[in-house]
Amino acid sequence: MRDLSPTPLSPTQRTRITRLSERGRSDRDELLAFLSEALIAHVAVDAGGHPIALPVAFGVDPDGPDQDGTIYLHGSVGAGWMRHAPGATVCVTVTSLDGLVLARSGFHHSMNYRCGVVIGTARLVESEEERARALDLVVDQIVPGRAATLRPHTRKELVATAVLAVPLHEASLKLRDQGVGDEPEDVDAGIWAGVLPLRTVAGDLEVDPLTSAPVPEAVARRADQLSG
Amino acid sequence: MRDLSPTPLSPTQRTRITRLSERGRSDRDELLAFLSEALIAHVAVDAGGHPIALPVAFGVDPDGPDQDGTIYLHGSVGAGWMRHAPGATVCVTVTSLDGLVLARSGFHHSMNYRCGVVIGTARLVESEEERARALDLVVDQIVPGRAATLRPHTRKELVATAVLAVPLHEASLKLRDQGVGDEPEDVDAGIWAGVLPLRTVAGDLEVDPLTSAPVPEAVARRADQLSG
Repeated sequence: MRDLSPTPLSPTQRTRITRLSERGRSDRDELLAFLSEALIAHVAVDAGGHPIALPVAFGVDPDGPDQDGTIYLHGSVGAGWMRHAPGATVCVTVTSLDGLVLARSGFHHSMNYRCGVVIGTARLVESEEERARALDLVVDQIVPGRAATLRPHTRKELVATAVLAVPLHEASLKLRDQGVGDEPEDVDAGIWAGVLPLRTVAGDLEVDPLTSAPVPEAVARRADQLSG
Repeated sequence: MRDLSPTPLSPTQRTRITRLSERGRSDRDELLAFLSEALIAHVAVDAGGHPIALPVAFGVDPDGPDQDGTIYLHGSVGAGWMRHAPGATVCVTVTSLDGLVLARSGFHHSMNYRCGVVIGTARLVESEEERARALDLVVDQIVPGRAATLRPHTRKELVATAVLAVPLHEASLKLRDQGVGDEPEDVDAGIWAGVLPLRTVAGDLEVDPLTSAPVPEAVARRADQLSG
């Protein structure tokens, strides 16, 4: 269960923000709110003498069984990175690119972004109940409410899927959401500067040709949220 | 110089695609085309006993001095990850999330995506000329043509910035760009299925209030490319 007074973010050296620490946030609820809106993470794993980062779907349970809650990853039991992750320290990074900061110098070009980083030991989830719940959370991360509209996972599917749980305890949230920050002497040099904001939007739903069912409410709501 | 018959992708075990290898591409030009359109990468570095993945800007020189060309990263000399990267094997991952694949079962929920992975030894770039060119490539990755419209980097800026070069030699490109792939027995069960396509779009340019210059052609073109 989530403690009523959860640990503040960045409790250890590993997730301490070393640069531009004024961009760091210390509110755990702000991290959870950011994670709840994100669609994709990158997981970094030591793949045997070198690190590898791969994009993954994920799910979040703020009340999960790990310290300060749980972020769940899943993958095929046959995936290369999945051989290295269980029991190892992994890093789960969730990034939203929010804008291109086009300054007057190359040096001050930047990006507006939000970035959550979670570092922790990946626990291989063994309990069938927790595994099924974690996979539902991964589906609901993509389209909130969708898992409840699907048939239960089969035993065969659960056997083919590995689920990892990473505690949300060691985490940081860093962001930049400002205009350009130029050198004073560059401002008068007549060079244009500004920010090009970016966001992820959905196009028109591509309904499977074999579908005769109406678009479910959960999907319509998600499409609407993500519409331009 | 880039070899006229460049090495095919995935020349080593480290970038071999272990799962769903039919999603892998073997054409180096396809990787370069994908990288040329991307805005952000995640770099994975061993941060001293555990990996860390962080979002970074990058630049690409297909004719760069490293094997099969160079991908450049930069960062503050004060950044934590930058202490660990020079001389180490790093992984540079560039991902585009192209759609949410909403299948009839949780198991077949998936994403459409493109993902380029480059693994290699990070060379700390020492030559001032190569460093300046690399930083221009990073700016031009964000807005093609912008670097030429800016003043040169100052010595102070170059001293504050570390530049890393990673060979494009060991690389893979993997993608999914299909509709749902359900179990035959689920197709008749009356559950809706489809794909929600996603893309990154730009909003209206936020011009810096201290700017009186007109919007440069390069910026206008980029904004137009990225407009909804």
